[in-house]
Amino acid sequence: MKIARFSHDGLISFGIIDDDELVVLKGDPMFAGYDPTGERIALREAKLLAPVIPRSKVVGMAWSYFASRDEQAAARPVEPRFFLKPNTSVVGPGDSIVLPAQSADVRVEGELALVIGKITKNVSVEDAEDAIFGYTIANDVTAVDLRERDGGPARAKSFDSFCPLGPVIDTEFDWTGLSLHGRINDRPFQSGDAALLKHTIAEMVSFVSGSFTLLPGDVILIGAPGTAATVVDGDTVQIEIAGIGVLSNPVRRA
Amino acid sequence: MKIARFSHDGLISFGIIDDDELVVLKGDPMFAGYDPTGERIALREAKLLAPVIPRSKVVGMAWSYFASRDEQAAARPVEPRFFLKPNTSVVGPGDSIVLPAQSADVRVEGELALVIGKITKNVSVEDAEDAIFGYTIANDVTAVDLRERDGGPARAKSFDSFCPLGPVIDTEFDWTGLSLHGRINDRPFQSGDAALLKHTIAEMVSFVSGSFTLLPGDVILIGAPGTAATVVDGDTVQIEIAGIGVLSNPVRRA
Repeated sequence: MKIARFSHDGLISFGIIDDDELVVLKGDPMFAGYDPTGERIALREAKLLAPVIPRSKVVGMAWSYFASRDEQAAARPVEPRFFLKPNTSVVGPGDSIVLPAQSADVRVEGELALVIGKITKNVSVEDAEDAIFGYTIANDVTAVDLRERDGGPARAKSFDSFCPLGPVIDTEFDWTGLSLHGRINDRPFQSGDAALLKHTIAEMVSFVSGSFTLLPGDVILIGAPGTAATVVDGDTVQIEIAGIGVLSNPVRRA
Repeated sequence: MKIARFSHDGLISFGIIDDDELVVLKGDPMFAGYDPTGERIALREAKLLAPVIPRSKVVGMAWSYFASRDEQAAARPVEPRFFLKPNTSVVGPGDSIVLPAQSADVRVEGELALVIGKITKNVSVEDAEDAIFGYTIANDVTAVDLRERDGGPARAKSFDSFCPLGPVIDTEFDWTGLSLHGRINDRPFQSGDAALLKHTIAEMVSFVSGSFTLLPGDVILIGAPGTAATVVDGDTVQIEIAGIGVLSNPVRRA
């Protein structure tokens, strides 16, 4: 099932995608279940929004992919690592990625993201996938020059609009079949699958939930395969994950 | 004026401290103004809670103090730096700081913290103090061994209970007169004032608001004077700021 959050006639609602229509729901299905209002809206008449606004955390997994099969074969086990992005960095499909005046090198990276569905603390690897409400696409935007200047990512990854999410949450996505393609102005810059991930999704969720309590609506970006690409004013970035959709965002200078 | 958030008879409310009583308010004064219900509650009968639960960000300023007058005299201007703590790390006065099993060296640092009162983006230094609702006391807890292992503070500063706040928000505190004293089991480990701060509060707020939109209830920890101190199971940490009060938290092993 694919869940969208959208605006239509000035109202923000949640709906289930049914071909080219939205089955409108009475509330946020994460909290209110799947209770239809009876209304259906044409998909092309709705503006899709970020499918979730985290009330607490956006967690980004770092260095989560091996660079190659050889590196993977030679590697010893490592702990997952993560950084934090504030919820104010979240925007939706079609929203602009705004290049801040402070940076001369902003880069984009497409990633699979998972949305936490319930309060989760110290969950075991075995039970970790039960905490997941669904999957969406994220663009992890970074001002890499500021990361180098600061010696850390807290500012560089936190600017408003630096976390596009969407277009929908897929509640049945099978992450082991991940196929991701990133394009800037229709030119490919990134592709990847799940084969070179250092940890399973369940291992990531278990690790993160051992560091702090995850709340419904928290989002974990699982990390980017391949290399980040610099964007400039006027570009359009598309991140496609087969089975979820395409997250498309224009880029503009502040 | 000193604002407390407290529980009493199973209800959570806000109130104004009036000697040994709480003047109960109808809502959160940050959003609802100072509208008394007419009820007064003895302070000793209320359990004070964290005076604010940030809906978005806890920002911690890093390296914000010069080590000495000599260093201050020789210094060239530097940009502020910050890290992020999730809102799930916030606890209130009297709540336990829980030492996670993953760490063998958890340290505490007392700091002045400011609470943002309105939506604030790219505010000038001149106007920055208008964004501040009030001041409280923070204890910035860090698993320093994990910070070293991870090469960054995201996990090390984010565990549940790693951001005690309280006991109250003082809406009229003059930060230039800051006098902070930290004690573990009544033994002093930290003291400081505002003289060695690298930046004014207004400069910090302006800088941070240039990095992302600040929302009402966001908290900025201004950084710690002196050295962090290791705590162990059974300790009690008290951070005192003259004019605001004492933030006291026991420490226990998870």
